[in-house]
Amino acid sequence: MPAANLPFSGAEYDRRLAKTRAEMAARGVDALFVTDPSNQAWLTGYDGWSFYVHQGVIVLPDADPIWWGRNQDTNGALRTVWMAPDRVRGYADPYVQSTERHPMQDLAKHLRDLGLEKARIGVEMDNYYFSAKAMEVLRSEMPGVAWQDATALVNWQRAVKSEAEIGFMRKAAAISEKIVDGVLERVEPGVPKNEIVAEILRDGVRGVGDDWGDYAAIVPLLPSGSDAAAPHLTWDGRPFASGEATFFEISGCYRRYHAPFCRTVFLGTPPDFLKRAEAALVEGLEAGLDAARPGNRACDIANALAAPLERAGIERGARCGYPIGLSYPPDWGERTISLRSEDQTVLEPGMTFHFMPGLWMTDWGLEITESILIRDSGPAETFCNRPRQLFVKP
Amino acid sequence: MPAANLPFSGAEYDRRLAKTRAEMAARGVDALFVTDPSNQAWLTGYDGWSFYVHQGVIVLPDADPIWWGRNQDTNGALRTVWMAPDRVRGYADPYVQSTERHPMQDLAKHLRDLGLEKARIGVEMDNYYFSAKAMEVLRSEMPGVAWQDATALVNWQRAVKSEAEIGFMRKAAAISEKIVDGVLERVEPGVPKNEIVAEILRDGVRGVGDDWGDYAAIVPLLPSGSDAAAPHLTWDGRPFASGEATFFEISGCYRRYHAPFCRTVFLGTPPDFLKRAEAALVEGLEAGLDAARPGNRACDIANALAAPLERAGIERGARCGYPIGLSYPPDWGERTISLRSEDQTVLEPGMTFHFMPGLWMTDWGLEITESILIRDSGPAETFCNRPRQLFVKP
Repeated sequence: MPAANLPFSGAEYDRRLAKTRAEMAARGVDALFVTDPSNQAWLTGYDGWSFYVHQGVIVLPDADPIWWGRNQDTNGALRTVWMAPDRVRGYADPYVQSTERHPMQDLAKHLRDLGLEKARIGVEMDNYYFSAKAMEVLRSEMPGVAWQDATALVNWQRAVKSEAEIGFMRKAAAISEKIVDGVLERVEPGVPKNEIVAEILRDGVRGVGDDWGDYAAIVPLLPSGSDAAAPHLTWDGRPFASGEATFFEISGCYRRYHAPFCRTVFLGTPPDFLKRAEAALVEGLEAGLDAARPGNRACDIANALAAPLERAGIERGARCGYPIGLSYPPDWGERTISLRSEDQTVLEPGMTFHFMPGLWMTDWGLEITESILIRDSGPAETFCNRPRQLFVKP
Repeated sequence: MPAANLPFSGAEYDRRLAKTRAEMAARGVDALFVTDPSNQAWLTGYDGWSFYVHQGVIVLPDADPIWWGRNQDTNGALRTVWMAPDRVRGYADPYVQSTERHPMQDLAKHLRDLGLEKARIGVEMDNYYFSAKAMEVLRSEMPGVAWQDATALVNWQRAVKSEAEIGFMRKAAAISEKIVDGVLERVEPGVPKNEIVAEILRDGVRGVGDDWGDYAAIVPLLPSGSDAAAPHLTWDGRPFASGEATFFEISGCYRRYHAPFCRTVFLGTPPDFLKRAEAALVEGLEAGLDAARPGNRACDIANALAAPLERAGIERGARCGYPIGLSYPPDWGERTISLRSEDQTVLEPGMTFHFMPGLWMTDWGLEITESILIRDSGPAETFCNRPRQLFVKP
């Protein structure tokens, strides 16, 4: 009896599981314990804000996955995963945030019951939310297991999106456009920043038409003036001021799928240095979009972007993008490919990225970005369709 | 040159650092590496949505703390921490989500520069976001260090709030009240759930008067009918229906401080079993509030709650509360004390809890909760002031 309201078809989950099992086989992994909430949802459909306690999915080569978590969250699992109810297992509440017991003692019992005492088990050593203590308890409970680092094993299987996933991202992008349209309309000198954020969040969750909005994996980021040098500041209640640029980093979200989108607004007359940076950045974005073709590599996008920026004397120290799709807090990236000069990953049709060449300089910042889809041929498609420019308002 | 807009006075940060250092000394810890974003903010003021990459604070017995993180986030640190700029250190971007390098290699360099190769260093092995891989890399980089599990060392120092912190929580509580008032006014049969969430988020961020709202560490939770059996489901676009109860678990947030608050709305005429559960739950809440006195223990609250529920034949499997205050996603609890029968922690004036006896049964749920403050004497004060009941609307 699968959950009633699954976002994807059984065939889609079968495909995902088959890809994951093939990679497990290739690495000689007998079982995989998946803690990253995005990976759990991608494989099983599990959806709920319960990732603040230990939980995960056991992936086996020859039987349906098992969702394992806190007892009270099994009710949520029964309502959101495609597996039969007997594939949902809970641990008792006294394990939660206890100094005497650890949930991984309970997980070890399940793994032993599956006959995995001597197995090679993959764990996501550097994914959210697998703690150092979780690893230590598992090692001590199951000394015969060969624990293998399977960080990002599942994340890599998510890189090429299905048509259904791309459809979700198009819906997320429509929500992103709506949010940015609202920002451009509402931002004015004197308006408190939190008032604009309130409308961003409202627009995002109201969604577009029948496509209701989910929560994005990152809250809106919108520093102004010299604070725009800092990419990850959130907001306060100070008013927008004339003579300042503010970038807006936001994403619509449709059933956990994202399409991040950033634009910058200047109130007043932008200084020449910012106009020059805008011109170089837009040229770099267009060169990068053109380089984002199947068969090219991730680094080709980064290098195409870098050339016009260098000519303008702008040195970025950071990567200029990452894969996107399904995600949970704290990050809407997939944590596999990085658009940077050292990344040789070959681009394939159906891959999706946030092409994100933010400029965060010593005392100013500028963000003009695109969420993109690698097509079967030719340059990338942008999910959103809004002018690629610095917006100027009086 | 400290940050311009710190939420607290220098004396408050001094107090926090002194408490933390005293506990380090008591445990024989020479240095502490703090990764929990809440602990980082509590100690240094650091505030930004950058906890999706490795970062942290090095606490030393005899010198100011060092904030360490990704290069691009040092700009945010310089704008939010109280320490001098030379106490902010960044690592280069190629360390981010790389398979060849790990940020902890860079951290190890800093720890070595501090002369800590043979030291006893505390790490938060079971706090967010210290991964199994982070621990492994540190162990391999610094084989002479005695790594000590310092999970929740700082969290415990946060248990008793200062007057300034309690002031922030009162502001958060006013926002919580505003959110719940809006919910009670707006929920009606036929209204899509996401429309209500949109207004909840908008009310929360608009805040009350000049007190602008920050993002809560957990998104609104509001399952209906039989889904209310699952405490951590989020929302979708389906309309509210007659004959169903929906609980609303929300929190206002003021400068990262929370006052969670839950109420349940029934549309139509509630069934008798729900009225009986309401009566038992309210009696239990009132008994718990009365037991929440300084000198009593955490378990006294849980036991006071349990008695009337047991008489009504309701067995809860879960703890009924946790400490609250400053927090970042994914959790607004402090992860120290648990209100449950085995927790003997003595209650002290200034402690703050979410007294959270949610009922999540097989096919229904009910949440009536209070954020509370342990007073100098007598029963606890509730931060919010709204009728303690199941709300019924036609």
